[in-house]
Amino acid sequence: MSVTYAAGFQAGTAKAHRTGGSERKNLTMIVNQGPMDTAVGVFTPNRFRAAPVIWTERILTDGHAGAVVINSGNANACTGQEGLEQTRNTAIKAAGLLGLEPERVAICSTGIIGHLLHLDAILSGVDQAHADLAGDDHAGADAAKAIMTTDTTSKTVTLDGAGYRLGGMVKGSGMIAPQLATMICLITTDAVLDPGQARTALRRACDTSFNRIDVDGCMSTNDTVLLMASGASGVRPDMEEFQALLDHACSDLARQIIGDGEGAHHQIRIRVQGADDEYGALACARAVAGSNLLKCAVAGNDPNWGRVVSSLGTVPESEAAYDPARVSVDFNGIRVCDGGKPGQDPDLVDLTLPEVHIDIDLHQGSAQADVWTDDLTHDYVAINADYTS
Amino acid sequence: MSVTYAAGFQAGTAKAHRTGGSERKNLTMIVNQGPMDTAVGVFTPNRFRAAPVIWTERILTDGHAGAVVINSGNANACTGQEGLEQTRNTAIKAAGLLGLEPERVAICSTGIIGHLLHLDAILSGVDQAHADLAGDDHAGADAAKAIMTTDTTSKTVTLDGAGYRLGGMVKGSGMIAPQLATMICLITTDAVLDPGQARTALRRACDTSFNRIDVDGCMSTNDTVLLMASGASGVRPDMEEFQALLDHACSDLARQIIGDGEGAHHQIRIRVQGADDEYGALACARAVAGSNLLKCAVAGNDPNWGRVVSSLGTVPESEAAYDPARVSVDFNGIRVCDGGKPGQDPDLVDLTLPEVHIDIDLHQGSAQADVWTDDLTHDYVAINADYTS
Repeated sequence: MSVTYAAGFQAGTAKAHRTGGSERKNLTMIVNQGPMDTAVGVFTPNRFRAAPVIWTERILTDGHAGAVVINSGNANACTGQEGLEQTRNTAIKAAGLLGLEPERVAICSTGIIGHLLHLDAILSGVDQAHADLAGDDHAGADAAKAIMTTDTTSKTVTLDGAGYRLGGMVKGSGMIAPQLATMICLITTDAVLDPGQARTALRRACDTSFNRIDVDGCMSTNDTVLLMASGASGVRPDMEEFQALLDHACSDLARQIIGDGEGAHHQIRIRVQGADDEYGALACARAVAGSNLLKCAVAGNDPNWGRVVSSLGTVPESEAAYDPARVSVDFNGIRVCDGGKPGQDPDLVDLTLPEVHIDIDLHQGSAQADVWTDDLTHDYVAINADYTS
Repeated sequence: MSVTYAAGFQAGTAKAHRTGGSERKNLTMIVNQGPMDTAVGVFTPNRFRAAPVIWTERILTDGHAGAVVINSGNANACTGQEGLEQTRNTAIKAAGLLGLEPERVAICSTGIIGHLLHLDAILSGVDQAHADLAGDDHAGADAAKAIMTTDTTSKTVTLDGAGYRLGGMVKGSGMIAPQLATMICLITTDAVLDPGQARTALRRACDTSFNRIDVDGCMSTNDTVLLMASGASGVRPDMEEFQALLDHACSDLARQIIGDGEGAHHQIRIRVQGADDEYGALACARAVAGSNLLKCAVAGNDPNWGRVVSSLGTVPESEAAYDPARVSVDFNGIRVCDGGKPGQDPDLVDLTLPEVHIDIDLHQGSAQADVWTDDLTHDYVAINADYTS
């Protein structure tokens, strides 16, 4: 499933480790067999962008690529000119096998920062992944697994449009924050899309999905979301329908990241409503989602609305106008703060379920926004104290 | 010691609990016996300011107060009109005992948000604290203990100027972030200061001390720093010397907060140098200090410079210009990242000591700024999952 659900796509996976390395597959090749080779991306705004981000953004300027190579375990970030050469050589290798120009091969990397790739192992992995290429469900499922790092489960989506298909996979569970996340996401479709259409649709979809999740407030050097269209269905989609499908796919994958947040026991939806505009609602929701104190409280099953309003109170009035004396906060439907004061008894709130809804009403206007985050647990600390990434 | 070190100040403490409450002293009264009653404050910019913050900022508009009453355990925040009435009634009670106008009594509260005070217990505590008033070292030490919440130790400072003294106390160990921190700080001096001088000096001192520490990125509803001058020494200080002493006192207390950060095992100094201006250096240092991933890495004794640069990379170029390919990062003097690439072997870094210095050089200009933070440990999560604040 995943990226091979749409017609025209093949995936292959391989182990690309030094001798004595892990037995895990960590290299993935996805090939678009056409007839179209539309490919567009959205990339991290981090100023320390990894070599593969620099490469891929550049080659996708014209909106075309025939293949992607993804390695997991090493981000090839902060590796200077040598890292850029390694990315380019990976593209050259894949291009040679596929009969493409190197500038038609996108590269993504995820994993530790500040280490050069073991290029021999990567290039040999590209050979193996090429030999493994297949268009069946199994190949797609293997690809979604091979891109994982600290993920505990693979994350995929498949959707059907009117005569065309859309499938996707994502990896990521830590260093997740607007903009984007430590994540690599690839969505494929057999709809007929030109690069301009694809780019507009992908940007919109990211804005309301990956840009509205926050695991730990940390922005990665490697975040990449790619959309590739083969046109193999022959169907030129209604763009409104396609946008809705793509939004759905991205939101679904973003939620799966939150569900797999490092060490998380609760998924938390912060909804801010009653704002003057969506921008203000989003600023408020992000401020609350970024509170370590709140995230710890939820880990302890404590509906601590004081930590909600104290975070809300850090948003400047110029970003979101509201009167603190009118604000209400609900935890799972129980209005624990009403008019800026204590409301219903917090003991009425049940936080034992894995999903927590925190609804904040500014009672100012009619705009709203959601941000998803995770609780902050002992396990998060353990994972991130011990993992070098 | 602490606030009774300077001549003209007395402190008294009391237990102000409901029947069956804790045996801990939690109410403190500090009285300025003059001859001057200069008093100024710096307050949290949080929009959900607690009742005592609203009260105290208002009554200090003219720069005069003769006493402060501080209760710990309940912040009297998000308590609406009734909370404001409780603060006012506490001031009226203390004023009656001291022969002052209520508008000459500052009030500070710290603790849980969203609960009304047990006013009877507070008022009875004010009576007891008044009966306990004394100007000796013991009284000052007791005051510094009585204002604590999750603090593990009391935090005080005493300094000598040319013919005058300065003493202070602070509480705070979590919800610490610019601006200010979840903290109550009171500094007293027997120097002769008028309100204008005191206000300017206190704002400057806060800017380079309490505003440059970050335990968890969370800004409190109650942060308050007060400076009171009795003039009892009869010495009108050289303001340059006084500023230096006050800066030192505030920095010392801020560092003690970091040293007592909730669950912290390491104190981390983030120094950004080589910036075009101090503002840019500070923006960079704060971005790095706010990284949960970095704070977990330090907890695990891992000099993870990838997490330093990925945080640095989130600062917009408009705030701090630099070339990522020229940035260096040292952990305790070992240059693990040089020119945006791996430098010396991270294994050379010893992170077993409690103090960690992370020095970032942007190689752009000559400005620098320091921000102090703590590591993020299992104990932080435990403290904040179990404590309702």
